[in-house]
This record gives sequence, structure tokens and C-alpha cells, in this order.
Amino acid sequence: MRSWPQDPDRRTKNDMIQTAIVGASGYAGAELVTLLQGHPHVELVAVCAAGSAGERWEELYPNRGHLFQDQIQSFDPDQLAGLDTVFLALPHGASATAVKQLKGRVGRIIDLSGDLRLNDAEEYRQWYGLEHPAPELLGSAVYGLPELFARPLPGADLIACAGCYATVTQLAAAPALALPGVVADQVHISAASGTSGAGRKADLATSFSEVFGDLRAYRVGKHQHTPEIAGGLSRYANRPVRVTFVPHLAPIERGIAATVVLHCNGTPEQSDILAAYESAYTNSPFVRVRDPEDHLPAVRHVVGTNFCDLAPVVDRTGSSIVILGVIDNLLKGAAGQAVQVFNLAAGLPETAGLLPDSSRGQGS
Amino acid sequence: MRSWPQDPDRRTKNDMIQTAIVGASGYAGAELVTLLQGHPHVELVAVCAAGSAGERWEELYPNRGHLFQDQIQSFDPDQLAGLDTVFLALPHGASATAVKQLKGRVGRIIDLSGDLRLNDAEEYRQWYGLEHPAPELLGSAVYGLPELFARPLPGADLIACAGCYATVTQLAAAPALALPGVVADQVHISAASGTSGAGRKADLATSFSEVFGDLRAYRVGKHQHTPEIAGGLSRYANRPVRVTFVPHLAPIERGIAATVVLHCNGTPEQSDILAAYESAYTNSPFVRVRDPEDHLPAVRHVVGTNFCDLAPVVDRTGSSIVILGVIDNLLKGAAGQAVQVFNLAAGLPETAGLLPDSSRGQGS
Amino acid sequence: MRSWPQDPDRRTKNDMIQTAIVGASGYAGAELVTLLQGHPHVELVAVCAAGSAGERWEELYPNRGHLFQDQIQSFDPDQLAGLDTVFLALPHGASATAVKQLKGRVGRIIDLSGDLRLNDAEEYRQWYGLEHPAPELLGSAVYGLPELFARPLPGADLIACAGCYATVTQLAAAPALALPGVVADQVHISAASGTSGAGRKADLATSFSEVFGDLRAYRVGKHQHTPEIAGGLSRYANRPVRVTFVPHLAPIERGIAATVVLHCNGTPEQSDILAAYESAYTNSPFVRVRDPEDHLPAVRHVVGTNFCDLAPVVDRTGSSIVILGVIDNLLKGAAGQAVQVFNLAAGLPETAGLLPDSSRGQGS
Amino acid sequence: MRSWPQDPDRRTKNDMIQTAIVGASGYAGAELVTLLQGHPHVELVAVCAAGSAGERWEELYPNRGHLFQDQIQSFDPDQLAGLDTVFLALPHGASATAVKQLKGRVGRIIDLSGDLRLNDAEEYRQWYGLEHPAPELLGSAVYGLPELFARPLPGADLIACAGCYATVTQLAAAPALALPGVVADQVHISAASGTSGAGRKADLATSFSEVFGDLRAYRVGKHQHTPEIAGGLSRYANRPVRVTFVPHLAPIERGIAATVVLHCNGTPEQSDILAAYESAYTNSPFVRVRDPEDHLPAVRHVVGTNFCDLAPVVDRTGSSIVILGVIDNLLKGAAGQAVQVFNLAAGLPETAGLLPDSSRGQGS
Repeated sequence: MRSWPQDPDRRTKNDMIQTAIVGASGYAGAELVTLLQGHPHVELVAVCAAGSAGERWEELYPNRGHLFQDQIQSFDPDQLAGLDTVFLALPHGASATAVKQLKGRVGRIIDLSGDLRLNDAEEYRQWYGLEHPAPELLGSAVYGLPELFARPLPGADLIACAGCYATVTQLAAAPALALPGVVADQVHISAASGTSGAGRKADLATSFSEVFGDLRAYRVGKHQHTPEIAGGLSRYANRPVRVTFVPHLAPIERGIAATVVLHCNGTPEQSDILAAYESAYTNSPFVRVRDPEDHLPAVRHVVGTNFCDLAPVVDRTGSSIVILGVIDNLLKGAAGQAVQVFNLAAGLPETAGLLPDSSRGQGS
Repeated sequence: MRSWPQDPDRRTKNDMIQTAIVGASGYAGAELVTLLQGHPHVELVAVCAAGSAGERWEELYPNRGHLFQDQIQSFDPDQLAGLDTVFLALPHGASATAVKQLKGRVGRIIDLSGDLRLNDAEEYRQWYGLEHPAPELLGSAVYGLPELFARPLPGADLIACAGCYATVTQLAAAPALALPGVVADQVHISAASGTSGAGRKADLATSFSEVFGDLRAYRVGKHQHTPEIAGGLSRYANRPVRVTFVPHLAPIERGIAATVVLHCNGTPEQSDILAAYESAYTNSPFVRVRDPEDHLPAVRHVVGTNFCDLAPVVDRTGSSIVILGVIDNLLKGAAGQAVQVFNLAAGLPETAGLLPDSSRGQGS
Repeated sequence: MRSWPQDPDRRTKNDMIQTAIVGASGYAGAELVTLLQGHPHVELVAVCAAGSAGERWEELYPNRGHLFQDQIQSFDPDQLAGLDTVFLALPHGASATAVKQLKGRVGRIIDLSGDLRLNDAEEYRQWYGLEHPAPELLGSAVYGLPELFARPLPGADLIACAGCYATVTQLAAAPALALPGVVADQVHISAASGTSGAGRKADLATSFSEVFGDLRAYRVGKHQHTPEIAGGLSRYANRPVRVTFVPHLAPIERGIAATVVLHCNGTPEQSDILAAYESAYTNSPFVRVRDPEDHLPAVRHVVGTNFCDLAPVVDRTGSSIVILGVIDNLLKGAAGQAVQVFNLAAGLPETAGLLPDSSRGQGS
Repeated sequence: MRSWPQDPDRRTKNDMIQTAIVGASGYAGAELVTLLQGHPHVELVAVCAAGSAGERWEELYPNRGHLFQDQIQSFDPDQLAGLDTVFLALPHGASATAVKQLKGRVGRIIDLSGDLRLNDAEEYRQWYGLEHPAPELLGSAVYGLPELFARPLPGADLIACAGCYATVTQLAAAPALALPGVVADQVHISAASGTSGAGRKADLATSFSEVFGDLRAYRVGKHQHTPEIAGGLSRYANRPVRVTFVPHLAPIERGIAATVVLHCNGTPEQSDILAAYESAYTNSPFVRVRDPEDHLPAVRHVVGTNFCDLAPVVDRTGSSIVILGVIDNLLKGAAGQAVQVFNLAAGLPETAGLLPDSSRGQGS
């Protein structure tokens, strides 16, 4: 049934999972190339990008030129048919169309876009500002945020990875929703992202001269991750959770710092809150719960990794709980998470290709 | 009674207010030198800085060398006795001591430090982490945040200027506290400041290699501006207001972006909220209320100015009101505000030395 | 003969020089608006910008909104006819066309573009990559670099301001060309500019994500300022000077740092070289010659000013002389220099509108 | 003869080369930890750092916490005795002392400092500004810049790795010295480095507030890499080469961009020059010679890698040849090069631990 013909000699490693990336010229796509080239169970057989077809990928990313030397191809669903897994790192709108073209013809699709995260075409139209290109697909994808929604991932053949802001904010807020004394019906989020979140493109608003020295909120009350966050937390808590989400643009290339605040009734103990977070993520290899007395999360602590660092802080003065969270928006917020959900869907170790092989540690 | 002897020839402009700056080597001090040198009613007769005495001020700030060429002096209260006004841009702890030495010997003291903002020695000890050096002065200073607390400023001879975070966050939150439908007993604040807020000093934590590409919260639940903000808003609203304040360090040199969130009961109209903010600041020349449909506040919009830009946004999804505020931490958050309160205390036009002379506009 | 009709009431200050700016939406244009609004002898009667006509200028530059509130107009030569002076801050190619439309109809034209700096259409085509739009104008403009070419400026009615790189590098190199022991036939220049030099526009190459953390040379051997520098230095030295010019893009918003190296025969004394530079610029209020033992030029020392800081260093190890120079590319490299040459052409004090009025200094 | 006793269970991988790092808390030390932990033939048995002993290394570098979890130890030569290889990432002055303590007691020492790069105590005193702490060691170390000085590396037991600036500038200049038509007796170098080159320390001069938006030259004519570069190029060319070296501090965390200029007699062909560079480095896996028509070197192209990208450009206008070079100062300029020379000294593949295992490429 497989039809990938281009280079049969490449098909020799029969135990490797054959994958392709569509949208490999963008920043998240570049991280996918890097991660999949280092993945012990993956063979990357094609990288596609409409606008850069014919170029060598290393021309776009010379600092990774030693990792991948092939040409970028145009996206042709017929060419990809038969592959085990295809990762889509496309803009929303374009991604659902690609899913439609590939579904049933490849073993598994990992979609990094927002197209299949919401289940309602009207909600999509409201928040994304366009008609959904394939509304019949809505509801068919498993949501890819493994620490909170692990169960449906094994074996899933269509996964909509959580958004970057949606990942760090849900990971930060979720454990608090069940804590005694925490008022869980309203969650206030302020978060700031680096410019790579806006994608690789020419835009005056993200030009160096405009962003340098600046810090500003944008799309307040209108950001498309808002319903994703509110919906996710509501499903997780099994009751309605209202979310106020204020995104900011920060003068950094990559990373997100999120600050989540919930009211408290009474005064929870700091040690209890910390223990609850540690417990919630005890089996999550990519969430590092930090004791705020020791160190607070910082973007630099996670850049280049798939970690999400979290620190819950009881603020007695404010009668609230503050949870600080940081991720690399291109890794745990995009490509790293895509590989993580791929691992879980494919039955591989969750950390494969993302952490050094545990069979080789220091001094062991 | 005046005793300023050092250079009698300088005393020729009898209509000018004779001032000195103590702490002129720091970043806020440098802004004070700049502003006072351009102030139409001020003669700057001395700049002092303990660690840099004997150096020429322009050696520290060559990009302002054309504005001021004198040597920096050591701080000697006897030398300053008899001056009309002394601005103190000293670290907390040191500043109250200087106030004690100058009080009664100069006409007016404008203190930029946090030493005299709180009224309780125990509260000071808790938040500033040291014993107050002059507890007898507590309560004797007028609080310098003119847009909210204007009345006691005219004629005041000791003014404790509001802190940088405390300025932008109180300006952002105060009008909302009286709005129908707004739950005003809890205010959630996330704010980020540039590194100049930490002062001009060697510190690994604010070294370029550590701050570049980073974004992180610090002193969560412990920042010394927290009681100042809560106290100020409580006085303004005439009822207790709890404040959760989460400061962040951003990789910019100057500027603060603050995001303030309050719950709403019901759904206030965006137009009503905007009108309420416009009304609250209609007589405040340095507060620019922005319609969020037109443009959201950005640090770059205010850097180099004494403006505070504010935009209130009703977030129906979150059932909340979000107020965005930005200032230049060294101007509206320090030196600019100091000049503004000085103007008001001295009976000068509020904008003197801060905005172009209104008697000369474009084309008029 | 004047025909500026738009707002006769504005024409009341008969002693003010009436000016307009064409290209006021760009970064250099914005500096021109700022400087001319503060200029004691200028009335700014119109700001024009094709792409932004109808917008209020302060929408583009909110941090300068207090300086200028009028609408931006489209550029209409008939409307500007009769004005005393028009400043053109347009891209090359467009600027010469505007000069053609305005010449003879306004009193004076100050052109910030590169269109009229070279005198030969073929040379223009080679370096600027396009046919000159008005070759009949070539040779008719006075070159605007007052410290080196002062004589023809008084009374000039068409001035082509020197380019940003060309300004700092010629100021750095020129005095050395006549020094005994210096081999003056070859000048090696490495210089780095901030991104504002590329203009206010959307471009992937100057997007924040691409420039952040980067440093790179560009257009090596091909930059259009090369013949301007070589031609200027040759005219200044009155013999052919070959120039190797290597421009770089630096991750700063504004400023240029230039490093100029010339061989030496024998070993000039550092003190002699320094004295020669001090002597060369003793009457140049905007050139600050620095003793390298005290402090080396830095971009931060000149940002926001019209200064050019220079430090000559004899390098005995290398048998060479190194001259370091820095300017703010938008001021001494563009708008500031334009005002400076305007002052000289109009018979005003050279520093008018650029330095604080010398009639009011500190303590005087 | 080995005496490393601390944890015998760690000694089980008998085929692994047992190494330690002294100075593991600094930026270059952190890169060493990262590289050696991923090196297929190395077992890292101890990391030492005087000031951080007792802390866990991951506390200092949380973004690498998954790579190494052990405590930092104080440096005790007795404890390290018997190890195969010790890497020293210490400040100059301290490093030679450590060499003295370790020499003869460990199999091999790789010194990243400048202490053993020069061969003359007087020259060291002149350029480093201190008395050499172990002059008897001068001349005993092999110089570690493999692309130019490969021969003595195999088997060497004491290697002084080339400095960061010295690496990129020598690689850029060396092939040109033998080219016909190139005047090789004088080399002009302008280079800029990120702040990590100054080390991990508190210093006002490298604080964020001072470096942000700045660019400046420093130590002109005085930088300690000057004699290293001149000496290296003279040895390579087998005749005296004079070097003018102008270092700059750039507002980036890591990376160096160097611009090297040499005069030409006559006009070499660009294609010949390019071919000569390609030929010179054809067997150098970490030097990528770029055709400047395709792309010019950029810091971002090499950050995070051990590559040095070079592009030679014939500048006919200037009658010169310009060679652009970039490296990551912490990798090819420090830790990466240290691993590279270690590989060559130990008889391992040159790229081991630095490039992906060639036995596993994409699709192969």
C-alpha cells in the first residue's frame, strides 16, 4: 500500500518510522527537522515547504546545515502517501486543507496548527477570523497536550498539538483548579512570547527596529488561544472555567513566560500547593516543578529544551495563588511537543529524541 | 538664611529656583540632571554622588555631555543648606538618612526612594528587609502621585515620589475601582520592567549575558512596591483593596508594561469603561487614555517621555476588565514624576520642563 | 512669489523660516519633525508622506505625539511651492524626482537621499543599481558634510547631505590623510550600523527573529556609500584615495561604529596624532575628539545627539593608525546633519535646534 | 598508577576516556560539560569550580539540567590525579598554576586559557598585565588551532587552545598570506564579540543597561590576543606579519564576527581566491568556505556549532582582499575547539562529540 517511491534506497532501515515534514521552512518546522534527524526511531524522508521548494534546507538554516542537506520539496500529497507519519507545521487555514488531502493516505498526522484544536466551526470563525477550510474534520483530532490529556494519545492517527500559549498556561493552571481554597472559576493569565511565535515572515510590526526596546500587549480579549485554554481547562476540571488571557510581545527570539493568578478563599499552605503540583506532574518527564524559594522559572532555563518549568506561589498579601510557567515556544510550544505526542501515539518512549538516551548518562 | 556659598556668581538669576541633586550618578539621577537643566524655572547649582565625587558628570553620561559640564560633588548637607529644593535619587536606606540631614535646612525635599512611602516602620522592615534609618520621619512626607493624590502637593516641603511599578499600576487600576459591575476588592497585576530599574551597578543577575533572551518573574509576593500599591489603592477607593503583584525583568533598558485584571459582575460596556477612564484623567496632562480599538499601549510609545498610556479593555470571555499601562520607569516612574510633583509643590505649571512650552507649538 | 496658501493664519511669524518635510513617516523623517519643531528659527508648515497621507503623524510616533499633532499630507509640489526650505527624506530614486519637481519653486532643498551625492550617472547606475531619474541634476547639489566641506554651504539652495556611513568614516579618516608617516592612499573601513539605517519597512532580513543575536557583513565591495567615501576623501586630500568599505548590520536600533585603519611608515607619536585631530575639528561643534587613554567612542555616547565622537590610536604593533568613530545614524548620519547644513546654508548658528541655546547654560 | 578513587563504580566503562573539567561554572566550562556529556568516547568523572563547589551544576545551568546532575567539586589536584584528561577553563593567571599542579599526574591537559599560548614571560607580562605564574611552563604546550597547526597535536599531553579572536582571525587570514598579489606583511582586523567572551561575572561595563543598544571598540592596540595572532600568522607564513587588531563589544550573548583586510598588488581573481580558500580547508571539517555571491558569513549561522564560516572577497575598488569570518566564541572559540584538539591528541575522529555520528545521517 505504501507508495513513497522517490528514493527506494532510503527505505532500507525497515525498523525506522518514515516521516515527512510539511512546512519545514518556518521556525517550528526547522525545529522539527532538527529533532527528527536526531530521533532514534525516525527516518526523515522528505521535507516540504511551498515557498522554498528547490532550495536546500541548509540554506535557510546554516547553523543546522550539518544536520540535514536535502532539498526542500513542494508539498504533494501523492508523494507523501504511504508514509508512516507526517508532521504539519503550516499556518492555520492551510493546515486543515493538508490534513484533508493526507488523511487515510498516511499512517498518522501530527498537526501543529490551530485548525483542529477547536471543535466548532463557528467558534473557529470567531477566533481565527476565517471560515474553516474543512469543517468535517472538526472533532476528529486528538488534542495533543500529554501531561493533561494523555489517555487518547496511544494509537491516535490525527493529533492537533496544543498551541504554545495554551500549553504553558494550561500546565500552569490545571493542578490549581482542584486545590481546596482556590476559586477555580476564573483564571487570569498574562503571558509574553518571543517574536518567533509570529512566524518567519516580513512584517513591520515584528521588524527589529520596532520590537527592540519594546514590550506590549496585543489581541487582548481576542487571541485565538483563549477558547483553547478555557475549553481545555474546563474539560480538565469538568466544570466551566473562565479565562482572561492577555498576550504580550517580548523582545526575545524564543520563549514564553506566563503568569497565572487565581483567587483563594482562606490561606492555602505553600508547602501543600507545591506538593500538589509535584504530585500532579510526578510522571511527566518534561514538567519541572520548582520550589519558588529555590528558583523561579525563567525563559533562559528552558530555551532549547522541551521542558515546562512551573512554580506555584501562595501570595498571602493578595489572597491568591500565582503560578509561573515558562516554555520554549518552538519546542514544548510546537515542535518538541509534536515529537512528544508522536512518541506516545506510536508507542515509543515519551522522551525519545527529546532527552539524551537514558541508557547513557554521566558516569554510568 | 541661605547659606549656599560655593559660587556666588551663579546666584544671579534671582527668579530661578535653586536646586541640587543627590545621587546624580545613577540612571534616575541622570534623568534629573537632564530635566532640570532644561527646566525654565530651575537653576541646578550642584550635583552630588558619593561614589563619583570629583569626576565630571559628562564622563558618566557622554551622550548628555552637552547638557551639563560640572564636576560631581560629594554629598555634604552643610553645602546644600539654604537651597530651595533638593532632589534625592538615592537607594532606599540611604535616602531617609539624607532627608534627616537636610530637613529644615533646605526649602523642599523631593525623595525618589521608597523610604518615606510607607508609614509604618514594621511594614518597612518587612518589605524592604532593613530597619528604617529614620522612623521618626514616617508619615511626614506627602505621597507623590499627582493624578490620584493631588491635593496635598501644593506647598509640600517633603515629598516621597511614588515607585515606578506603583505609579503605572495605581494609575491603571484606580478608576476601575469605582466602576459599577467591577469587583474591586482584588486586583491582579503582572508587570515587567527594564533593567535600569535595578540601578546602575555590577550584578551578575543583570549582566548582559544573563538577561539577553530572558524573561522572568522575581520577588513574587515579596516586592516592596506591593504594600505601596495596595495602600494607595485602598486610600483612593476608601476601602480595603487586596493586590497580587507579580514583577518581571524584561530584556529592555527602560520602560514598564503593566497588565491589571479585575473581575466583573455582569458585563460593563466597553464604551462606558473607556469614558470613565477618559473622565478620570481629563485634567491629567501626562496620562493618555487610549481606545484599545485604535492602539494598545506599548513601552516604545512612552520611552523618553513622562507619559503614562492606559487602555481599559472589557474582556467578555473572561468576565473581567483588563487595564494595560506603560511608562518610562526612569521618567514617569522616577525623575519625570519628581519634576512633576516639584512643579505642583512649587506652584509652577505641571508640565514645566516636561513638555514643550505651550506658548510655542507647531505653526502657531 | 510665495504661493503657500493652505493656512494663512500660520504665516504670522514672519521671521520664521517656513519649511516642509517630505518623507516624514520614515525614521529619519521622524527625527526631522522632532528637530524642526524644536528649532528656534523654523516653522514647520507641512509634513508629507505618500503612504501615510491622511493619518496623524503622532499615530506613527506616539512617543513624540506631544511634539506634532497635524495630519500627514500627500506630497504635492504645487502645495509646497513658495516655501523657504523643503527637506526630502525619501528613498533614493524617488528623491531626485522630487527635487526636479521642487527646484526653482522653493527657496532651498535639503536632500537626505543618495541621489545627488555622486556626479556621474554611470557611477550612480553601477552603485545604486538603477538609472538616475534626473541626470541633469547631477553636479548641481552642494555636498553636505560641513566639517570637511564647509565653504560652498552658505547660501546653497540645493544640498545633498552626506550618507550615514560616509559621514562618520570621512570624519574619521580625513585628518589622517595629511599626517606625516601615514600611508594615505589606502583606507580600510569596517563599520556596523543599527537596523534603522535600513528604513521603516517590512523585510524578513531585518525582522527581529533574524537580527536578534546576529552580526554580519553585507554588500561587501558593493555598498553605495563606497564611491561617496572614496570620492570625498580624494577631494579632501586632493589626491586619489582608495577605500575598502565593509558595512555590517548590528543588533541595535540606531547608531554606527566605524573603525578606520591606515598604514604608517615609521612611528607617529600618539600625542601628535591626537593634537592633529583636535586641531582639525577645533571649530566643529559636533565633533568630539577623544583621548583614547580616557575613553573610546561608543555608540551609546552619541545616540540621540548630533555628535560624532572620534579617537585616533597609534598602533605600534600593527604599524598603523586606527581611528574609531561613532554617530547616531539618524541624527549626524541623517536628520541632524540636514539641520546642521540647513543652518549653515541659511546663515543661522550652526548648532541652532541641535544643541541647547548657548544663552542658557547651567548656572549661567 | 591511577589514583582516581572517588567512585570506583563509575570506572566500569574501561574503554571510555576519563576526564574532568576545572572551571565548570563559567560559560566555556558549561559548554565543555555539555559536549563531553555527549561525547561517545568520554566519561566525565568530575566537574570542579572553586566558587561554586557544593552546588549542583544544574542550578547554574537549568537549561542543561537534563545533561548533568552531579555536584560541583572544589579543585583538588590530588583528587584528579590519574585521570586521562583534564580540561582547564580557568581565567588566565589561575590556569598556569593549575597546569603546574596537574602536570605529570594526569594523562593530558587541555588548557583553554591564554597562559601557555605565548612563549615569552616578558611578552606575557606586557599583554596580560601580570607576572606569569609558572614561566617554566612557557614553550611546553602545543598550540591548539588544528586547521593551521595540526602536526604536533597527535599524542600531545599539554595543549594551549587558541583564543577566540585568535582562532577566527587566523583562520580567516592564513590562506591569504600565500596568495600571489596579496601584500602579506600587514593584516588589518576588526572584530566584534558577544558578552559571554568576558566571562560569567558581575561588571558594570557588561551590565545589560550599559551594553543594550551599544557597540564599541575596546583595548585597541592592547588586546592580549594581538601577539598570539601576529605570532601565529608569522609562524604559518614563515615570515613576519604585522597585525592591527581592533576588538569590539557587540550586544549579543555569543559569537564573533571578524573582518580581515589585506592590500593587494594587482587584481586577483575572485574565483582564484575562493578556490585557494576551499583548497586550504578541504580537509577541515569545521571550516566552511562560503562563496560570497551566495551568502556572507553571519554569527547566527554558526552559533551553537563548532563551525568557522569564511568568505574571501576581492574588493577591486579598494584594491584589497577582505575575508569575513564568524565563529561561536564559546565553541570554536573555546570549548568546541578544546574537544576538537582533544580528539586529535587522543587519536579519535576529529568530529567526535561535535558533529552527529557520521554512521547515522538522514535517510541513510
